[in-house]
Amino acid sequence: MNINNKPYHTIWLKDDDSEVVQLIDQTKLPFEFSIRDLSDYREMVMAIKDMWVRGAPLIGVAGAFGVYLACIEAFKQNKSKDFILKAAQELRETRPTAVNLMFAIDEMVNALNLVSDIEMMLNIARKKALELKQFELDNCYSIGKHGMELIKAISEKKNGEPVNILTHCNAGWLACIDYGTATAPIYLAHEAGIQVHVWVDETRPRNQGARLTAWELGQHGVQHTLIPDNTGGHLMQHGKVDMVIVGSDRTTVTGDVANKIGTYLKALAANDNNIPFYVALPSSTIDWTLNDGVKEIPIEQRSPDEVTYMEGVGENGVENVRICPEFSPVVNYGFDVTPARLVKGLITERGVCPANKEAILDLYPEKEV
Amino acid sequence: MNINNKPYHTIWLKDDDSEVVQLIDQTKLPFEFSIRDLSDYREMVMAIKDMWVRGAPLIGVAGAFGVYLACIEAFKQNKSKDFILKAAQELRETRPTAVNLMFAIDEMVNALNLVSDIEMMLNIARKKALELKQFELDNCYSIGKHGMELIKAISEKKNGEPVNILTHCNAGWLACIDYGTATAPIYLAHEAGIQVHVWVDETRPRNQGARLTAWELGQHGVQHTLIPDNTGGHLMQHGKVDMVIVGSDRTTVTGDVANKIGTYLKALAANDNNIPFYVALPSSTIDWTLNDGVKEIPIEQRSPDEVTYMEGVGENGVENVRICPEFSPVVNYGFDVTPARLVKGLITERGVCPANKEAILDLYPEKEV
Repeated sequence: MNINNKPYHTIWLKDDDSEVVQLIDQTKLPFEFSIRDLSDYREMVMAIKDMWVRGAPLIGVAGAFGVYLACIEAFKQNKSKDFILKAAQELRETRPTAVNLMFAIDEMVNALNLVSDIEMMLNIARKKALELKQFELDNCYSIGKHGMELIKAISEKKNGEPVNILTHCNAGWLACIDYGTATAPIYLAHEAGIQVHVWVDETRPRNQGARLTAWELGQHGVQHTLIPDNTGGHLMQHGKVDMVIVGSDRTTVTGDVANKIGTYLKALAANDNNIPFYVALPSSTIDWTLNDGVKEIPIEQRSPDEVTYMEGVGENGVENVRICPEFSPVVNYGFDVTPARLVKGLITERGVCPANKEAILDLYPEKEV
Repeated sequence: MNINNKPYHTIWLKDDDSEVVQLIDQTKLPFEFSIRDLSDYREMVMAIKDMWVRGAPLIGVAGAFGVYLACIEAFKQNKSKDFILKAAQELRETRPTAVNLMFAIDEMVNALNLVSDIEMMLNIARKKALELKQFELDNCYSIGKHGMELIKAISEKKNGEPVNILTHCNAGWLACIDYGTATAPIYLAHEAGIQVHVWVDETRPRNQGARLTAWELGQHGVQHTLIPDNTGGHLMQHGKVDMVIVGSDRTTVTGDVANKIGTYLKALAANDNNIPFYVALPSSTIDWTLNDGVKEIPIEQRSPDEVTYMEGVGENGVENVRICPEFSPVVNYGFDVTPARLVKGLITERGVCPANKEAILDLYPEKEV
């Protein structure tokens, strides 16, 4: 998608045969747009740990490029395969709960294990990392194509009036390689000339909506309005929302959806006002072993500082301010679970389906046990 | 309620026969506790306009004390009754939509109109302002007494385990004279030795929960935990909320409740999890002419700056930081409407009743037309 009228991915090789990986440093957005050059896998370890990159699909691809950087070092400095495998392990451990990262590192290591020559490993690593990147990109594009049809249908019913779509958090292209998941249908609709307008939940406490989603939509020229998380219900009561599209961190095979905290509240409001609530997700986020999301999906508690402090631009540049009494205890759950009964449909790379086990397995019959 | 272990009201006469009105400057909370001395009605105009005081009941009483200050000036400087009436008008216009303020100024002017001697006016004004203050205080206390019974019943069912109460915004004693509305049952339960714990919604965008409710509960020693507005649904799904109590800015005679934006989302979640959702309100907030809150109650739009900037304590003291891209448009609705079907009961100064016209008019038969 575009930034300052120029198309970008979130991560790329500096030029075709380059030994430098470039990526967008997302910690500084939206206050500063900055690109980092990485030529050492240890920098990639830092990039993932310190969240210069975030979002499951992007983290996986970043890990893969990290292995590629380790192969370059092994080749240039005559290091062994052991060095590469240790580097891969180090990259794997940067975000211990990131399933996509495990998957990507496994793919890299399995491919490298097919050969023993370091130069061959280097070539395989580059090829494989680029393949994994393309795979994530294709998934998002397919989600976008399928989801766009839903937007198009509403647009036709509204005789071309803008389709108002509410989204929560950032399931945008910044979390992926391009297009995003929840945003992919929106970008493709926009490209196809369908009028869309996005209500962007600010998404407390980390403000991914205010910081990232608003920024990426604005940079690409998509009409949008930033709102406090409290506002969506009122907008829905007054006919100002035509559909909701959110992403998912983990989805049960029965269609329960774990996503950023607060998603459940928007699903309830959509349900109460007969507004279709969609979840866009690559099938890699489906957990084929879980049947009850509310009971079975563990919800991470995060640092209270995310609630008590707020980062923004003040008189002296970017700073953190405390927004509550010093004595107040805080809890900070990262996610909540939206029961399948509130979900109108799942938008996957293979198509749209109702949020129930039968329909999901119809799309993914190879997962039937 | 207590601040630093000392009991306070939000507004008071400096001492029994004083000519100085004192009030808590709420603009600086929770970062600084400061008391202002006002000896000129023009300062009270500023106090109301600039929101040193806020909350419907408190604003009304502040207006009344403003008229009293004008009477002092008229008496000391030989000014006419016209001067007093003009001052009253000026005070009335500080917050044009505040119904309690109109009511309080009317009460003051009507009382003053009974006499023509300025010294008599001065005495009447002091007496009347103190009466209005006591009236608001009594209302809150009665709401507290009735609401405490609901908490007590849950506490008994839980064998004395803490009753977990979720509240949104600040319908606390800081918005009133003492006790508050939504918080009155909580304070009285706490005083009665019933174990309570309050989940405090931070209440974006103005953060009245994080700034005021957390502070006043903490100062009085009530157990509480600050949460992002997104968190309540998850807590309710997992049995961590026993009841919800919120305040109301305007309630229809049919029981629809306009309150701070985001209240509706919590009511939906309570309903989805069979958790009782109560609204505490003095009957002065009931609009006896309205039947459909969602359709008939106009919702104020406020400044986008409340969303795009956040005030907090940074390295250089209290400052404002921008938390989103400069280019993003914002909407900022102040309130939403919770339909009566989601409300378990209204806690009024006359008792608790279901949120429907018949039950409300049973409590207030004199309002039947």
